Amino acid sequence: MRLHAPLDDRTAWSPVGHCPIEKAIAVVGSRPAMLIMREAHYGTRRFDDFVTRVGVAPATASTHLRALTDAGLLERQPYQDEGARTRDEYALSPAGADLMPVVIGLFSWGMKHTDGVDDLEFAHVGCAEPVDLRVACAAGHEVGEQDVEVRLRRGRPRRRVRA
Amino acid sequence: MRLHAPLDDRTAWSPVGHCPIEKAIAVVGSRPAMLIMREAHYGTRRFDDFVTRVGVAPATASTHLRALTDAGLLERQPYQDEGARTRDEYALSPAGADLMPVVIGLFSWGMKHTDGVDDLEFAHVGCAEPVDLRVACAAGHEVGEQDVEVRLRRGRPRRRVRA
Repeated sequence: MRLHAPLDDRTAWSPVGHCPIEKAIAVVGSRPAMLIMREAHYGTRRFDDFVTRVGVAPATASTHLRALTDAGLLERQPYQDEGARTRDEYALSPAGADLMPVVIGLFSWGMKHTDGVDDLEFAHVGCAEPVDLRVACAAGHEVGEQDVEVRLRRGRPRRRVRA
Repeated sequence: MRLHAPLDDRTAWSPVGHCPIEKAIAVVGSRPAMLIMREAHYGTRRFDDFVTRVGVAPATASTHLRALTDAGLLERQPYQDEGARTRDEYALSPAGADLMPVVIGLFSWGMKHTDGVDDLEFAHVGCAEPVDLRVACAAGHEVGEQDVEVRLRRGRPRRRVRA
């Protein structure tokens, strides 16, 4: 990647406090939060399953499930097992579902660059072919790390950038 | 997403300790680490620029730059300004460059779901069209959150999954 003018003078602006990556990390950037989101993507909905499969204490799971629900990534839905009291389970919201590329991106990076990982893959339900991310432009070109520039967004009202 | 048999019995296996997402998070899952990787993707190489543009104390930047270098995501390269002593700058390694989909994924999620963010976008240097992630299978189908299953990898030696 490269910074496009006027952003290429990196001493003249700083993303601190108004970077979308920084804001996203504030929501899902902790280990328990991201692993809870992984589990929610895997279809896990019940509190006890989050505790076991994320590998955290119940109090930690509770704190992060509440924070992710408050942030709009999970939705509480009541359920009742026979003979038991009504409890809440946690389902992916549309904002939570939008995190799928990040989940897949971390998965792919971890498969390639770390050891001792499970022999899993993502596949397309429709045709059974493996699923992965592609970085592409609106014209359909696949783009590599050298082919991307960061620029001021065009044709929209300026928000906060100071460059 | 859904879990494909035999993984769909989520009480019979747990990803704890051998999930590629968990392993990736162990490397880049802290706020300073991920923001340093953002800056490295933006072309930042010098220590003082990382400190300013990530918004951390020099000691914090130093700790995380060292950890990311040791983990193989950054490479130290000596440079010398005229009249100054030789110092190191930090360049993206191939493993660091492979994190681009995660950087773009967090950026896109933050742009869509958080407020007060900079008015930036990623664009293709070649044709100037905006760049984003696509989730697609090897047959070229774009796939949504409902169209993905997690399965045991086929045709490769089993590694660690216990299902």
